[in-house]
Amino acid sequence: MDAPKIAVEPKSWRSDELVTAVEAGGGLVADIAEAEALIWTAPETPNLIADFLANGNNLRWIQLPYAGIEPFLPYLDNDHIWTCGKGIYARPVAEHALGLLLAGFRGLNSYVPASTWQQPKGRNLLDSHITILGGGGITEELLTLLAPWNCEITVVRRHARPLAGTVVITTEELPAALAKADAVVLALALTDETRGIIHSGTLGLMADHAWLVNVARGEHVITDDLTAALNQKVIAGAALDVTDPEPLPNGHPLWEMENCIITPHIGNTPEMGIILLAERVKQNVARFAKGEELLGPVNVDLRY
Amino acid sequence: MDAPKIAVEPKSWRSDELVTAVEAGGGLVADIAEAEALIWTAPETPNLIADFLANGNNLRWIQLPYAGIEPFLPYLDNDHIWTCGKGIYARPVAEHALGLLLAGFRGLNSYVPASTWQQPKGRNLLDSHITILGGGGITEELLTLLAPWNCEITVVRRHARPLAGTVVITTEELPAALAKADAVVLALALTDETRGIIHSGTLGLMADHAWLVNVARGEHVITDDLTAALNQKVIAGAALDVTDPEPLPNGHPLWEMENCIITPHIGNTPEMGIILLAERVKQNVARFAKGEELLGPVNVDLRY
Repeated sequence: MDAPKIAVEPKSWRSDELVTAVEAGGGLVADIAEAEALIWTAPETPNLIADFLANGNNLRWIQLPYAGIEPFLPYLDNDHIWTCGKGIYARPVAEHALGLLLAGFRGLNSYVPASTWQQPKGRNLLDSHITILGGGGITEELLTLLAPWNCEITVVRRHARPLAGTVVITTEELPAALAKADAVVLALALTDETRGIIHSGTLGLMADHAWLVNVARGEHVITDDLTAALNQKVIAGAALDVTDPEPLPNGHPLWEMENCIITPHIGNTPEMGIILLAERVKQNVARFAKGEELLGPVNVDLRY
Repeated sequence: MDAPKIAVEPKSWRSDELVTAVEAGGGLVADIAEAEALIWTAPETPNLIADFLANGNNLRWIQLPYAGIEPFLPYLDNDHIWTCGKGIYARPVAEHALGLLLAGFRGLNSYVPASTWQQPKGRNLLDSHITILGGGGITEELLTLLAPWNCEITVVRRHARPLAGTVVITTEELPAALAKADAVVLALALTDETRGIIHSGTLGLMADHAWLVNVARGEHVITDDLTAALNQKVIAGAALDVTDPEPLPNGHPLWEMENCIITPHIGNTPEMGIILLAERVKQNVARFAKGEELLGPVNVDLRY
């Protein structure tokens, strides 16, 4: 069995680790003109991929770097196998989701910027009701982390496939799941069905002590509706690792709202992520060499 | 068996729930002159207890409200059985300790006050090295919450009694345990041995990427030494739920340091605590009525 020829492009700060991963997986790093596969190193420059696709006449497989593939949607096709970082970043993102839940429940939004000893306040995450939208990798990891917390957890997903230790319901039952939650966590893929799923109507169903945590995509939330809900204390607060628009521009009203915590899409930082991506690339190159099924396949029709 | 006569004093916002707890435990609420036991409702006014002790000629047992009993030390004696809230607040405090760990590791100290989209940064609590000082109730609960995190945890305590899933060492081995930690959590009782255990020397042993989390007592830390260490980036940051002095006065340099998170002693808020205290009072009154051993005994000689 010949080592598969694999292009690692474009040159970026991730190149060295991904070249090492390709070789560790049994691949031979090659020019795009000869390559059977392309490992894309730069989520920041999706537009550059068009040239590589045009020049890669032998390409059968393309590995994208992130779990979310929105910037690459224009280039997807049925002529290649596409894989992405689906699932590999779930653990650090779940960690951050739990940190944001605790930050909101324990009032860090007002305590951290304070310059004076404030009155005590806060809610327990222990024994609380959590509703999670999405039943993918982040949710699975978050359920693992939440196992000792004695929370009553409801997972809302498209199909009511069971998940251990939780109640799983389908999107039709979303209103009841929002109403009973002390916190709502967004951990779902962005599709036409889920875009804007949090708007003034769904926010209005939530309890006024509840927090919204978004570690998925900014476009799940209608930002103006959330801003209004936070202003009117419809909910207690929002902790957003993703925003729409993203990056959130200077001067946006959310920056100055005490009941809104914003982190700059750091659920998985580049430094955390490269280690996880390199491991996935190594595994997928080894599978590609053996003709096995690849991990993290993109569903080209469903576009995620 | 007669219902024991129990005074619930002084009148405070906690009185109603504690009276209910006494009755639920089988006690009869009585005037201090007749009472066999005193349930102290007000941690805020320890000095008032002297009069009640003087007037309580039949008192055999005194229940103090908090886990830390420093304000009551002048009144302890060997003529009464003393109990306190030892252990009952451990779960919410452990929850807050985990929240502070995540807040530090994930950079909430700089992201929360920001008004602009910053660069990504942060460390994973997952798979990290945590050293916990103290092996009591808070540590036990924190170990339970940390079980899914794949952390390597070292517990430093006076006697090396084992704790499941961790390495337990004694105070002599503290230097090595500080040096290898990504975070050091203070969760120990305040005694003459532990007062000031964190000073410029012990801080200097910690890694420059490490966080210090204090959910025990402010006096465990020499505040001026910590301030200097944070200024000089000897450690990455400190997250303090307790301070010395406490409350931390306006204008103290720690308020303005970006690498210091301060919360106003909210590991267990009064609202969280009254529910837990009422349950303990109910149990102890029932035990007292039956002549059984009481929960949370104060060691008058060791003064905690």
